[in-house]
Amino acid sequence: MLISLVIGTTVSTIKDPTLSGRKLLILRQTDVDGKAFGKPYVAVDTLDAGVGDLVLTAHGSSGRMTELTKNKPVDAVIMAVIDHLEVGGKVTFDK
Amino acid sequence: MLISLVIGTTVSTIKDPTLSGRKLLILRQTDVDGKAFGKPYVAVDTLDAGVGDLVLTAHGSSGRMTELTKNKPVDAVIMAVIDHLEVGGKVTFDK
Amino acid sequence: MLISLVIGTTVSTIKDPTLSGRKLLILRQTDVDGKAFGKPYVAVDTLDAGVGDLVLTAHGSSGRMTELTKNKPVDAVIMAVIDHLEVGGKVTFDK
Amino acid sequence: MLISLVIGTTVSTIKDPTLSGRKLLILRQTDVDGKAFGKPYVAVDTLDAGVGDLVLTAHGSSGRMTELTKNKPVDAVIMAVIDHLEVGGKVTFDK
Amino acid sequence: MLISLVIGTTVSTIKDPTLSGRKLLILRQTDVDGKAFGKPYVAVDTLDAGVGDLVLTAHGSSGRMTELTKNKPVDAVIMAVIDHLEVGGKVTFDK
Repeated sequence: MLISLVIGTTVSTIKDPTLSGRKLLILRQTDVDGKAFGKPYVAVDTLDAGVGDLVLTAHGSSGRMTELTKNKPVDAVIMAVIDHLEVGGKVTFDK
Repeated sequence: MLISLVIGTTVSTIKDPTLSGRKLLILRQTDVDGKAFGKPYVAVDTLDAGVGDLVLTAHGSSGRMTELTKNKPVDAVIMAVIDHLEVGGKVTFDK
Repeated sequence: MLISLVIGTTVSTIKDPTLSGRKLLILRQTDVDGKAFGKPYVAVDTLDAGVGDLVLTAHGSSGRMTELTKNKPVDAVIMAVIDHLEVGGKVTFDK
Repeated sequence: MLISLVIGTTVSTIKDPTLSGRKLLILRQTDVDGKAFGKPYVAVDTLDAGVGDLVLTAHGSSGRMTELTKNKPVDAVIMAVIDHLEVGGKVTFDK
Repeated sequence: MLISLVIGTTVSTIKDPTLSGRKLLILRQTDVDGKAFGKPYVAVDTLDAGVGDLVLTAHGSSGRMTELTKNKPVDAVIMAVIDHLEVGGKVTFDK
């Protein structure tokens, strides 16, 4: 899983019919302190996450292992909202 | 999913028999403003997308989770055409 | 899928028994003009492609979605031989 | 599989219901001497590994091939704790 | 598949129970001349390959498509030992 920051939202009228009503958020991977790097990607939100939340995303076929994404043409899902991260005995991120 | 711009088309006479009639488009990944970067890749179009459209693509086995790509040897599919993207409260792309 | 150039051949006496008789070619990813970049990788040929052909390859589990690769330990397959590519209204590659 | 060092822990109250009670650790890939490089990622621990352990992680759908991760939305699992590594006749890592 | 050189061995006492007795080797990807580059990764050996052998590895779910790796939490397998490679009419590697 990747530690990622939710940075934005997408709107698509024309999409695969199985994705109707699914929320597709824009994210960027972060370091353990929640600082974003790299290029944006899009994941399905199943946990009512919002812009500014630090989350974990599962990719590939694992992105389809939730009730809302099963058998759908999506390859990334938010499966946890992070409360805090601890590295080397120090809290590096706290919600 | 990757935010990508449709930049071109492919023609192949010799291909896997299950792909007959499938439209294979050339894309490049973009940033949230629709500016392309990186190297071209090819995805199946299932939504009648065209050159110049900003779209979302699903990869790997998730690329086979549409009616048109099921059980076919393809690893990327266009599953949404983007209307607009919003990051940090600002519209970064509008069709 | 990746646009790739077939650059060479492999010979292996010791291999998984299910791969007996399968042709494993060496490829490099290319740009839309067929110019190769990056490091070599190996894919199964199912279309009688040859060295010098520009092809499309499907990766991961999608590489097993042809008659010849089903259930085999291979993660890339040539599933189309490219006739031509067109980008921005211009033919960038013609066989 | 990747050789990786466990560097930290995550806490998430809001997560996919199937992940209740699962331990999600933070790792970084290492070289054969156990020196970490690259960006952090998160994997499920199934072997009671702890911070400071050098481990192997399996990714993608293979991350779901353990008793604890089957059918869950996770894409990386710790499936071995490394005792030692040997390269070119020399021990490069010893627990 | 990746062309890779077997560079070392791993020992793990604590591992997923399904991996008992499986040989996990350390590899690095190579160019067509067998020269290694990039970072080490680990794959299951199913062909009695040894350190110094140039091999092909299949990744992801394809790494589980051998008798010895079926349904196991592994994401890379050695599925061929390379005898020789030929690029542009020249032998670039000969065992």
